[in-house]
Amino acid sequence: MPGDGRIARGDATRRLVLRRAVDVASVDGLAGLSLGRLATELELSKSGVFALFGSKEELQLATIEAAWEIFRSHVVTPSLSAGPGLPRLRAVCEKWLDYSERRVFPGGCFFFNVGAEFDARPGRVHDAVAAASGSFAAFVREAAAEAVALGHVDADAELLAFELHALGRAANADAVLHGAAEFYILARRVIRARLDAVARA
Amino acid sequence: MPGDGRIARGDATRRLVLRRAVDVASVDGLAGLSLGRLATELELSKSGVFALFGSKEELQLATIEAAWEIFRSHVVTPSLSAGPGLPRLRAVCEKWLDYSERRVFPGGCFFFNVGAEFDARPGRVHDAVAAASGSFAAFVREAAAEAVALGHVDADAELLAFELHALGRAANADAVLHGAAEFYILARRVIRARLDAVARA
Repeated sequence: MPGDGRIARGDATRRLVLRRAVDVASVDGLAGLSLGRLATELELSKSGVFALFGSKEELQLATIEAAWEIFRSHVVTPSLSAGPGLPRLRAVCEKWLDYSERRVFPGGCFFFNVGAEFDARPGRVHDAVAAASGSFAAFVREAAAEAVALGHVDADAELLAFELHALGRAANADAVLHGAAEFYILARRVIRARLDAVARA
Repeated sequence: MPGDGRIARGDATRRLVLRRAVDVASVDGLAGLSLGRLATELELSKSGVFALFGSKEELQLATIEAAWEIFRSHVVTPSLSAGPGLPRLRAVCEKWLDYSERRVFPGGCFFFNVGAEFDARPGRVHDAVAAASGSFAAFVREAAAEAVALGHVDADAELLAFELHALGRAANADAVLHGAAEFYILARRVIRARLDAVARA
């Protein structure tokens, strides 16, 4: 088929644009994305980039999807390598803090930033951000529920999951805002103490 | 003095613009502020509004200052009416959650939003946001330290303060993003349980 080469080139360009878009959005927000600016920065033809995404909103939605894949590969997938129950619950907290601390996205956690940006702006972008954020919260809740079901911890799974997720997000917020890694140390200490307190001997 | 009337009118216009600016910024971010748009929406002369603030950055800085005054009057000042120690620590958590839940700013906590917006963008706006955010964190830490010093609680004050502040911010984030008040209930339950656990009989 004569179109194959063009389709492959389109996919490669799309990946290139999105890899840059997730980084830009993590610092300047999804509202700060611009198809024209991305094309210029990546030295791509503007018409080609516009043809691939169609509109700013489509670019924003594709950026959220790309960020979610990166997030999953750094946080969710490696946590699943840990055994179910308390090991997995500890792993998801550690992997999340590592993901934020290592600046997988230059602005810190992508979903923390775009969550705050679009939380009060109704529309498709809001819904996509809320879905991704809710999906991770559900993953932490399931890990906590499993830890309770397996008899590893004695706690209210929903409250424990909310608490652990809150501590991670606070560390990300304070560390990025103040440029200070000490908040990760604080969060790790509190998380360890909380999990040790609810762990069954 | 002939200038008095003009100065008074200038002050009143400034307050009007800033009251609107804090609301706009809590939803659309500080980057979403525009002197021209504010003037149009408030039916003020554009040149007059430009003369009062000079630049977008000055408007952003004045907006942060105005938001901080509102925040103080809703959270910090009423907490100081509670007795020092555990009562004040409980009060600051309650007042913060009330402030977020009642949507004193339509987009939820102003400083949560602009903190995430400017955390990775160096400059004067970042520094002002970081100073306000750090100032409130210090207030919570002092309240916790006082509760320890007075023998009301048995805990590491820094860790406890970080934990309580994290829970409030998570409730704000989830409640605004998902349009669901249940997160305030969750946070209140966790905060109560944590404070009860560390309170000395």
